[in-house]
Amino acid sequence: MEKKTIWDLHRDTITTYRLRKKLPVVMVLDNIRSLNNIGSIFRTSDAFLVEEIMLCGISATPPSPEIHKTALGAEDSVEWRYFASTMECILYLKEQGYKICVLEQVKGSVALQDFKPSPDQRYAIVAGHEVEGVSQEAVDAADVCLEIPQYGTKHSLNVAVSSGIALWHFFSSLLSLSTSTVK
Amino acid sequence: MEKKTIWDLHRDTITTYRLRKKLPVVMVLDNIRSLNNIGSIFRTSDAFLVEEIMLCGISATPPSPEIHKTALGAEDSVEWRYFASTMECILYLKEQGYKICVLEQVKGSVALQDFKPSPDQRYAIVAGHEVEGVSQEAVDAADVCLEIPQYGTKHSLNVAVSSGIALWHFFSSLLSLSTSTVK
Repeated sequence: MEKKTIWDLHRDTITTYRLRKKLPVVMVLDNIRSLNNIGSIFRTSDAFLVEEIMLCGISATPPSPEIHKTALGAEDSVEWRYFASTMECILYLKEQGYKICVLEQVKGSVALQDFKPSPDQRYAIVAGHEVEGVSQEAVDAADVCLEIPQYGTKHSLNVAVSSGIALWHFFSSLLSLSTSTVK
Repeated sequence: MEKKTIWDLHRDTITTYRLRKKLPVVMVLDNIRSLNNIGSIFRTSDAFLVEEIMLCGISATPPSPEIHKTALGAEDSVEWRYFASTMECILYLKEQGYKICVLEQVKGSVALQDFKPSPDQRYAIVAGHEVEGVSQEAVDAADVCLEIPQYGTKHSLNVAVSSGIALWHFFSSLLSLSTSTVK
């Protein structure tokens, strides 16, 4: 089999991308410390047509050479905005009708693979600080807590990886539910 | 809802982990340049009970402070071995009965979400170099090429993120097919 070239991939320009219908999902970054992780989440969000990234608290914002290193320009294609506090962002999204899905290991969580997103609903996925995870306050405000089942010796996945897995779950679920959601 | 504590998570010690039944999946790293990515793949592999990581070509091996930075000790729990060439590794795995699944954007690929792993088969997931991707030679030797559908402006996902998504697909599919595969 032949590898696809850059031309075969038919990627969008930033102008075309801005006009494209997005996945009804925003990412909320609750005090993410590493610019490397923020950039990586931008890159994944670009690929899966995320509506917007909400950078909250200590999460750094573009422009930043360190974010650019892993975002590779996706910080210019994906919409983003900054909130001084994650709770302010969550309250805003609730008012807008988003369902708040916190990505965290929590008692009473729903296993990610069991959560079926609806094409008629807008979702906010909240990912948290590298060590502390999502704050208890944000967990308390969640409509649902989604947990990626994990075994092994470590306590958690890297936040850029867990965000990637969660976004893939929403993207692939909605892609199969409604092909009109994406091109 | 209450966040799980370290004690609630009941994580394995390295000794317990070594004895645990693993997912019938090995990761093959085809000339991965970044030690950060290698470490991150170790961390994800620990969480999803990957059988072994095959580090090929220029892919660095533990012990390494840079791998440790993102693996956070998972380089000590997950089995690994080194092959001077990816093709040597693939031929070895084929002899052992593994199905070779190359993770690449290829003409004639299968979309990841459409691939149904069988609990009676052992799989090798091949992930490639940050810029070049998986080599054409390895693509030619594949039993199947798995592609993560991507839109947006960028050409590909970060390799630690795409490996995480692929491992999650195998882990969550086999978890639902056979609960005896994992605890």
